[in-house]
Amino acid sequence: MCKELKWDTLVLGGIVLTMEPDAEPIVNGYVGITDGQVAAVGSRSELNEEFEADKIIRADTHLIMPGLVNGHTHAAMTAFRGLADDLPLATWLNEHIFPAEAAHVDENLVYWGTKLGLAEMLLSGTTCLADGYFIEDQAARAVHEAGLRAVLGQGVIDFPAPGVPDPRLNISVAREFIERWKGVSPLIRPSVFCHSPYTCSATTLESGKELAAENNIFFQIHVAETQREVERIRAEKGATPIRFLDSLGLLDESTLAIHCVYADDEEIGILAEKEVSVVVCPESQMKLGSGLARLPAMLERGIKACLGTDSPASNNDFNLFGELRTAALAYKALEKDPTILPAPQILSLACAGGAATLGLSEKAGMLIPGYYADLITIDFDHPNLKPMYHPFSHLVYALTGHEVSTTIINGEILVEKGRLTSFDLSETMAQVREIAARIR
Amino acid sequence: MCKELKWDTLVLGGIVLTMEPDAEPIVNGYVGITDGQVAAVGSRSELNEEFEADKIIRADTHLIMPGLVNGHTHAAMTAFRGLADDLPLATWLNEHIFPAEAAHVDENLVYWGTKLGLAEMLLSGTTCLADGYFIEDQAARAVHEAGLRAVLGQGVIDFPAPGVPDPRLNISVAREFIERWKGVSPLIRPSVFCHSPYTCSATTLESGKELAAENNIFFQIHVAETQREVERIRAEKGATPIRFLDSLGLLDESTLAIHCVYADDEEIGILAEKEVSVVVCPESQMKLGSGLARLPAMLERGIKACLGTDSPASNNDFNLFGELRTAALAYKALEKDPTILPAPQILSLACAGGAATLGLSEKAGMLIPGYYADLITIDFDHPNLKPMYHPFSHLVYALTGHEVSTTIINGEILVEKGRLTSFDLSETMAQVREIAARIR
Repeated sequence: MCKELKWDTLVLGGIVLTMEPDAEPIVNGYVGITDGQVAAVGSRSELNEEFEADKIIRADTHLIMPGLVNGHTHAAMTAFRGLADDLPLATWLNEHIFPAEAAHVDENLVYWGTKLGLAEMLLSGTTCLADGYFIEDQAARAVHEAGLRAVLGQGVIDFPAPGVPDPRLNISVAREFIERWKGVSPLIRPSVFCHSPYTCSATTLESGKELAAENNIFFQIHVAETQREVERIRAEKGATPIRFLDSLGLLDESTLAIHCVYADDEEIGILAEKEVSVVVCPESQMKLGSGLARLPAMLERGIKACLGTDSPASNNDFNLFGELRTAALAYKALEKDPTILPAPQILSLACAGGAATLGLSEKAGMLIPGYYADLITIDFDHPNLKPMYHPFSHLVYALTGHEVSTTIINGEILVEKGRLTSFDLSETMAQVREIAARIR
Repeated sequence: MCKELKWDTLVLGGIVLTMEPDAEPIVNGYVGITDGQVAAVGSRSELNEEFEADKIIRADTHLIMPGLVNGHTHAAMTAFRGLADDLPLATWLNEHIFPAEAAHVDENLVYWGTKLGLAEMLLSGTTCLADGYFIEDQAARAVHEAGLRAVLGQGVIDFPAPGVPDPRLNISVAREFIERWKGVSPLIRPSVFCHSPYTCSATTLESGKELAAENNIFFQIHVAETQREVERIRAEKGATPIRFLDSLGLLDESTLAIHCVYADDEEIGILAEKEVSVVVCPESQMKLGSGLARLPAMLERGIKACLGTDSPASNNDFNLFGELRTAALAYKALEKDPTILPAPQILSLACAGGAATLGLSEKAGMLIPGYYADLITIDFDHPNLKPMYHPFSHLVYALTGHEVSTTIINGEILVEKGRLTSFDLSETMAQVREIAARIR
């Protein structure tokens, strides 16, 4: 044997889905992990008795696949999960969410709210996220301790916000955030998160983009989420939101454009041409009655796109497997075409698609030697996953998300046998319960 | 104390949601069960040390509510879960499902397929279902052993079907089924399930309805599921499917009309006037690209309606909590109105709404003394359910379904601490795996 058969961690399947385009599932496969990277992927028949590993995870009845990428979260808002539902967007925001944020968001809420959100993500198979909120320092602290891979943006908005009572300081607070977190961990990439074209002036938007460009980091922005936003920006700026951002020079391959529900053909063309990354949030957009972003048309044009859950105030969970199912079903219903977004395609949006959208092409989203060891195992020994003809089908259409058994990020085992190992879940839930008792 | 405080089973909450219209959640509540019925519901503060119960279920961190009602299933088809997805309806049916049924459906498949489906239902909080399939005798055997409450219909169709090679015998086979199962158990009500207006002749439909009427039982039928069906029936019969059934005199308060995706205002008026029960299956209808039944309009007209999952060949699970979320989101997106089908309303469709649709008004769907003791407890001690402001919100928007901990039907405990107690899940999964190995 000339093959190196010594690893830090060896995961023995079960089926391995590498999520490479058109790759067949490997039955009875394994993944070897060394130095935080995938070192080997193959069939267990290749292994003889000579292999060595410091840690062996036996996942015979499991499926092994890349961890999922959540392209848009406000994890701190887990503290507001289900605070107000089934309301018109303006009522929901102005009478419930904004007042709750003004009264209650502080370092403690952001830290513990984020941590609880991360627990839910880890337990349901998410290994990488793009987050944006205020007091993002505390979100970064939580992410750093919890061990996820993340793009994290300090929120920038032109009115007083938690941690930034004077909006004139919004860009400098964002700059401090970047300086504090740049280089702290290979897993954490700071970014700038300008809230939206209707809450940031042109000057603020341009300054935010400049700050991002100086640091060669992502610029995140909500855009074209509602019809109301389109009408308002058109009235105030004389252009639709996406065209308005384009006119300011904000659209390029380092921009993460979130929502893009209202994008006409020409705007989809602009997003494609400028190589903008797009994140669509089907459940949030549906729940708020905004509609659905034109994801199939965007993919057709070759746009890098992925799915995001948005915050638990509008979704109300971080379960990306649920998001995948909702998306697959909703687009089929919308277009009255059952062949749209078939299971392998929608699943790849949360793997390689998510990685590409967040600038991790050729580093994450597939199980290939040299890629980050960000992977999960899912126990298929549950009645809702029996029998099994096609693994993609079950992952999208039958999984609840709780079947995730192992979550590994950068080679570190963060969930084992369905239990969090990187931090104390009970304490986290208790802390958030205490915070919520003051909000109620 | 003049109150009777002795029960067969006492469930100590936790929050009790009785699901009576506009009833507030009871914090720290209890439910007492005697002789298969709810005997008492109230606050634990009413209980002193004198209460007695043969069995006490401690559900401090749980929510207690009525079990859910699934208005449309083909549970045996669990054996075909995920066999073929993402295909046009005709291809899916004619090239995959019908051939698989012709080649593989036998007594063994119907029995074990149904049993696996029932396991999934019990574990995710469903206590009552309306099912229809061929060789329904074996489905009834499985339901009887598993202990669910059910309306069960032997399938009637005008071409050779499993167990009915000669279609001229379809009505007599249905009659035998009814004779065999009438009165066997208070939980099981046989019915007649004529497949659809495009697979049954007018004579078959009329005979099926007559058989149901003679026995005072439900007549189930798929109707107006697709645009294609509407066009075909209009061409062949000169009327749309719902009007065609009406012209045959098939529509009345003992008819269960399934799907009704294509129903114009006048047809919705007919369904309302004739007091027809309607079952809509959002996930199945979405996945097959059929569209969405006009549920809000039907409810507006006072139609008794509930949700069904349809079969795992088209859905692909029996998780009604997932179905509730999908429905709540999909209608909001379709109508671009976030206030449509708010959480308490959609949840009540699966409780009192389901009970009314299946003829169990004032017997099931709410926790009221004298009603059947069909109830579930859901453990809220999970990160995706923290914090908790409004229980309805979490049940619809954040639950995965696996948090169901206890399922009680007719006073019998069938799931305890998340484990099936009424039959052997491992054996059931193994049997279906063996059946699937022959299908693959």
